[in-house]
Amino acid sequence: MSNKSAQEMAPAEVRALIRSGEWNVNTSGISSGYVQGNIVILPKSWADDFLKFCQMNPKPCPIVGMSDNPGDFMLSSVGDDVDIRTDVPSYKIFRDGKVVDEVTDIRDVWQDDLVTFVLGCSFSFEEALVADGLEIRNVTEKVNVPMYRTNIECRTAGPFSGTTVVSMRPMKPKDAIRAIQICTRFPSVHGAPLHFGDPESIGIKDINQPDFGDAVTIKEGEVPVFWACGVTPQVALEQAKPPLCITHSPGCMLVTDLRNSQLAVL
Amino acid sequence: MSNKSAQEMAPAEVRALIRSGEWNVNTSGISSGYVQGNIVILPKSWADDFLKFCQMNPKPCPIVGMSDNPGDFMLSSVGDDVDIRTDVPSYKIFRDGKVVDEVTDIRDVWQDDLVTFVLGCSFSFEEALVADGLEIRNVTEKVNVPMYRTNIECRTAGPFSGTTVVSMRPMKPKDAIRAIQICTRFPSVHGAPLHFGDPESIGIKDINQPDFGDAVTIKEGEVPVFWACGVTPQVALEQAKPPLCITHSPGCMLVTDLRNSQLAVL
Repeated sequence: MSNKSAQEMAPAEVRALIRSGEWNVNTSGISSGYVQGNIVILPKSWADDFLKFCQMNPKPCPIVGMSDNPGDFMLSSVGDDVDIRTDVPSYKIFRDGKVVDEVTDIRDVWQDDLVTFVLGCSFSFEEALVADGLEIRNVTEKVNVPMYRTNIECRTAGPFSGTTVVSMRPMKPKDAIRAIQICTRFPSVHGAPLHFGDPESIGIKDINQPDFGDAVTIKEGEVPVFWACGVTPQVALEQAKPPLCITHSPGCMLVTDLRNSQLAVL
Repeated sequence: MSNKSAQEMAPAEVRALIRSGEWNVNTSGISSGYVQGNIVILPKSWADDFLKFCQMNPKPCPIVGMSDNPGDFMLSSVGDDVDIRTDVPSYKIFRDGKVVDEVTDIRDVWQDDLVTFVLGCSFSFEEALVADGLEIRNVTEKVNVPMYRTNIECRTAGPFSGTTVVSMRPMKPKDAIRAIQICTRFPSVHGAPLHFGDPESIGIKDINQPDFGDAVTIKEGEVPVFWACGVTPQVALEQAKPPLCITHSPGCMLVTDLRNSQLAVL
């Protein structure tokens, strides 16, 4: 492993380490400035409906890249030498909606009909917010962002349906206004928040008991601000129960060659 | 007067009616799509500091046009034939900070050292919000928007200082997020809101008792959203007490040839 910090390493270097088995953990904070993606891999017969689900629910399921053709394991749309079978530090394999294995290489389960989706994640917009001087509480408190199931229905596509999962970051109102402006520039990493303030009005019973991730401190004068979250498609996948589905393990993302700034529409 | 509705009349037609004395009332809703401006006229010796005050406090005091030179009464920057001495339906004349007269023509008080400022007003962004399908409560309830003094200090320039006055429109959080996106495109008509939610945190004691304008209904599930307001410079002027100052009368604005859409930065 080189002497460079993981934060400074180019995405291709990181992927080479992952491919060789030298890196099989969390990718948080590595290759700063580059897009990391959530991974969903499905058989072609399920992938068409999943693509439609993402298209109909772009805030929780923003696609930043996908296979050119079924069976392609080289993902040219997100990087020069990305082999999706080996370049993610850890994979979860689901059969009929249940996790059956967690592995660091999927070459032996690869099929000619598999389609890969790379979905944008909040790492990209958090970087833009921090760069603007805003405090991100889950970063400051060094925990996973709190995530909640809501009553906001997704639009259904074939077997894929469910309600939206949101992530929450508490902010002062004036910082929330600035965050809305910044995140509006990044529609492919969840875009502007969906809601702020009263948790109950979107079906969240107890803000201190997230359904996923960790609770964070909400200070006096702050309001919870809610973004659509990439856990939404995972929940839809678990409900749909495809015969085979492969995802990244939590926090172990694909590091792409796309720069976060390239996702900005303005 | 023509048979066209006031809403459809071109700004030049409206100004001709005003100049001839046939129109001396509120300009709300006329020449739809065109920018209406707040007017401030000051002697050159005070105008330099007022310009600096506007520059330092652009959210409450956004300049959309001003005289090319002191003494110029034709305002070429905002329209083809705008004579600021006759083209506003009603003027207030202040001497030493006190209203001394309300008139429909200022040709006889005009001086060679007078400088005119045209400041953006909320009519322009309200039009953009309504066009997007959002409800503006003061429009629906046919009253003046509620306005409040806050504890948000303006930056001081010479004799001009004070706190920011805000206007308030109640919205559901998801509409407030959309309003922030839309208003961000219009920095010269107050731009994005300054605050939402808790009124007390910006020094507003009772949301049902506005300092200017009328109270509006805040429904269950709505939050008050606060924008910087053009009354801010009026308060600063009253405190500064210049020997002469001329403004429009409330609601009786200058109708310019600029289109609201031209104020959009994106």
